[in-house]
Amino acid sequence: MAASPRITRCRTVDLRFPTSRFSIGSDAVNKDPDYSAAYCVLETDSSVEGHGLTFTLGRGTELCVMAIEFLSRFIVGRTLEEITTDMGAFARELTGDTQFRWLGPEKGVIHLAAAALVNAIWDLWARVENKPVWLLLAEMTPEQIVKCIDFRYIDDALSPEEALAILRHNEPTRAERIAFLREKGLPAYTTSVGWFGFSDEKIRRLCKEALAEGWTHFKLKVGGDPADDLRRGLLVREEIGWENKLMVDANQKWGVLEAIDRTTALKPLQPWWMEEPTSPDDILGHARIRRETGVRIAIGEHCHSKVMFKQLMQAGSIDVCQIDSCRVAGVNENLAIILMAAKFGIPVCPHAGGVGLCEYVQHLAAFDYIWASASLKDRVVEFVDHLHEHFLVPTRIERGRYMLPEAAGYSIEIRKESLQEYAFPQGTYWASASTTA
Amino acid sequence: MAASPRITRCRTVDLRFPTSRFSIGSDAVNKDPDYSAAYCVLETDSSVEGHGLTFTLGRGTELCVMAIEFLSRFIVGRTLEEITTDMGAFARELTGDTQFRWLGPEKGVIHLAAAALVNAIWDLWARVENKPVWLLLAEMTPEQIVKCIDFRYIDDALSPEEALAILRHNEPTRAERIAFLREKGLPAYTTSVGWFGFSDEKIRRLCKEALAEGWTHFKLKVGGDPADDLRRGLLVREEIGWENKLMVDANQKWGVLEAIDRTTALKPLQPWWMEEPTSPDDILGHARIRRETGVRIAIGEHCHSKVMFKQLMQAGSIDVCQIDSCRVAGVNENLAIILMAAKFGIPVCPHAGGVGLCEYVQHLAAFDYIWASASLKDRVVEFVDHLHEHFLVPTRIERGRYMLPEAAGYSIEIRKESLQEYAFPQGTYWASASTTA
Repeated sequence: MAASPRITRCRTVDLRFPTSRFSIGSDAVNKDPDYSAAYCVLETDSSVEGHGLTFTLGRGTELCVMAIEFLSRFIVGRTLEEITTDMGAFARELTGDTQFRWLGPEKGVIHLAAAALVNAIWDLWARVENKPVWLLLAEMTPEQIVKCIDFRYIDDALSPEEALAILRHNEPTRAERIAFLREKGLPAYTTSVGWFGFSDEKIRRLCKEALAEGWTHFKLKVGGDPADDLRRGLLVREEIGWENKLMVDANQKWGVLEAIDRTTALKPLQPWWMEEPTSPDDILGHARIRRETGVRIAIGEHCHSKVMFKQLMQAGSIDVCQIDSCRVAGVNENLAIILMAAKFGIPVCPHAGGVGLCEYVQHLAAFDYIWASASLKDRVVEFVDHLHEHFLVPTRIERGRYMLPEAAGYSIEIRKESLQEYAFPQGTYWASASTTA
Repeated sequence: MAASPRITRCRTVDLRFPTSRFSIGSDAVNKDPDYSAAYCVLETDSSVEGHGLTFTLGRGTELCVMAIEFLSRFIVGRTLEEITTDMGAFARELTGDTQFRWLGPEKGVIHLAAAALVNAIWDLWARVENKPVWLLLAEMTPEQIVKCIDFRYIDDALSPEEALAILRHNEPTRAERIAFLREKGLPAYTTSVGWFGFSDEKIRRLCKEALAEGWTHFKLKVGGDPADDLRRGLLVREEIGWENKLMVDANQKWGVLEAIDRTTALKPLQPWWMEEPTSPDDILGHARIRRETGVRIAIGEHCHSKVMFKQLMQAGSIDVCQIDSCRVAGVNENLAIILMAAKFGIPVCPHAGGVGLCEYVQHLAAFDYIWASASLKDRVVEFVDHLHEHFLVPTRIERGRYMLPEAAGYSIEIRKESLQEYAFPQGTYWASASTTA
């Protein structure tokens, strides 16, 4: 057997796409996102590399890049095998530096940075095994999966033994689900039709196009003027009808009381869920909104750790668990969250979009189906149709479903030309943008 | 009336003190802190300056410095009056940059940075008014205080009207409390006796000295070997007796279930409170530990926003609210937290120590007494006796009480010589440490 590759260097790139120029990604709070990433490449003493990124909105990406550079000290110089032998311990080490953790712990800039590195390790690992990450996970043993998880702070909700029981229960039938996924793919929904900055005409046109492409689940951004939210929602309903599902997303715009009023006012739209009605930190607030409106509640893209997800489940705050591939510290922490959701019976519908999030989350949603929930009922993965052209292995969507990648790795490697063009501020796009601005 | 000074520049310093060399500040999780600060100076077009800092533990301070430099764009070029006219709006602006907030929101590195800047504005404001911050607050009207608060995300727990009612209720008697504070000072407790890395002999000696100085409340770090924790606690009890108060602090060491066992095991010490038994994000976990052990629970130094404090109060998680002067976004956010605590009847016992935290929090504790709780019962401010020599207006302790400063500002300005010596990595201390290391 070949020696495990030794990681020799961590290269970073501050990568920014000028999406704000086209209102792509605009919502009630994030008005002008430039979809961006703190991107890293783990070089090794062999020809294989590991790629990872954490998603950002532009300004501040440099902070994540610096944090990645700091945290890379826990990786550079080690062999892949030294890390993968005990991934749970590695994850804890990466978030436990005795001085650095003061800046979190396990939240914000430093946790976003940890996500990029953890994911880069999984990319490297999967490449060495010559499998996509979802298949690497699918072919592990229950014991190996449990060993990837740091149970500290969550064992009151999910013990290692409980996790193992879920995995073992699903083990005998996993081959069927692997085969199903390869043939049929993962159900998905589209957010591309209803960005905040889009005109009515554009929304109508995009709805028509999406229906023709086979989409059945649609998300609309709300949180503006109340009458306008309702009008735009009804406009989407006119296009997609009432059999298809419509979700609404307020992107944290409201306080709890206002959220209750506004969510109630949108009930005529029959929303399949209300997403982020208030502060993502407000576990009790979401529970109250859910209780008082009777509308299904979805959050997760801004939930910063497994401890927050744990409480959302314990408090009865959510109907839908929107895991994020790089808000929490990457694959390992997501395995914990997905298994907790399985225990609590809450469907996982991953957050995606941005840049690279679709590429990432398909692997995690596959893990959920194969190992945790063993069900696709009420489970849809977000899809947003832009920036995929920058990836070597872009997502493949057919009739509103993610068709899983077979290429080795975590599908997150960005094309060299894109890195050269959109590296900030020295890339060719930004250099010429600043001279012409 | 003179024109309001215009802020012309924000100067920053990465400041690190080598406290880890003496086990100062050591606990079960933070084993080797180098007490540090991202420090900023707001220069103006007049001779007055505003100083602020956010406290860190060493590595990673550079991230907070960079974030301060980014956020200073919301300050530089404006007059003080343009900012102080609507401090609530200013606080929201500083935490609401549409791209930058993705890195939080309102947590971690970017929120620590916001704290330094908000506090620097208060320092500047108080200097212009020629008052210490506590007196500037004491002499405001209830309406002015309410206008400093951004009620978004907390109005389900405390509305502007409720805040106003608390303030108006206390207004007629505030002069008595101002006079009392000037004469008697604020009750305090000492953490200096029981750091994790201290020997038994050192703990005994420090207890004796502290008793002789008039201290009546003592805090001990726990979270090591169970038998050792108990032994060290009994050793402190031998020195201080059972009439004095002993608090224990686990610094987030345990999961919820372990925290319940370990807290129960320490009940023979009759702890006045158990501090940070588990993850600071675990609102429900703390509520459970409190319920199942019957021991008073204190947390706050790592609670990253008013939304988290709100829930700790709503969920019945805490008996003691440990506000932190620069974990949340400075004075404004702390006013909100202190008023919520008053509404919920939870005593505020500020976290201090580190570098500058004692200097800061005396102003906030005075606000609590004068305007919010109007009581000193069960209220003690943490005190740790080191690094005060670096401040122009260091805390003044007499017989275990903080004697309030009368000098204008927020007491946070650091001596020029200290900045030159401990600026990292170019200061004289670090430059010579690296050559001799």
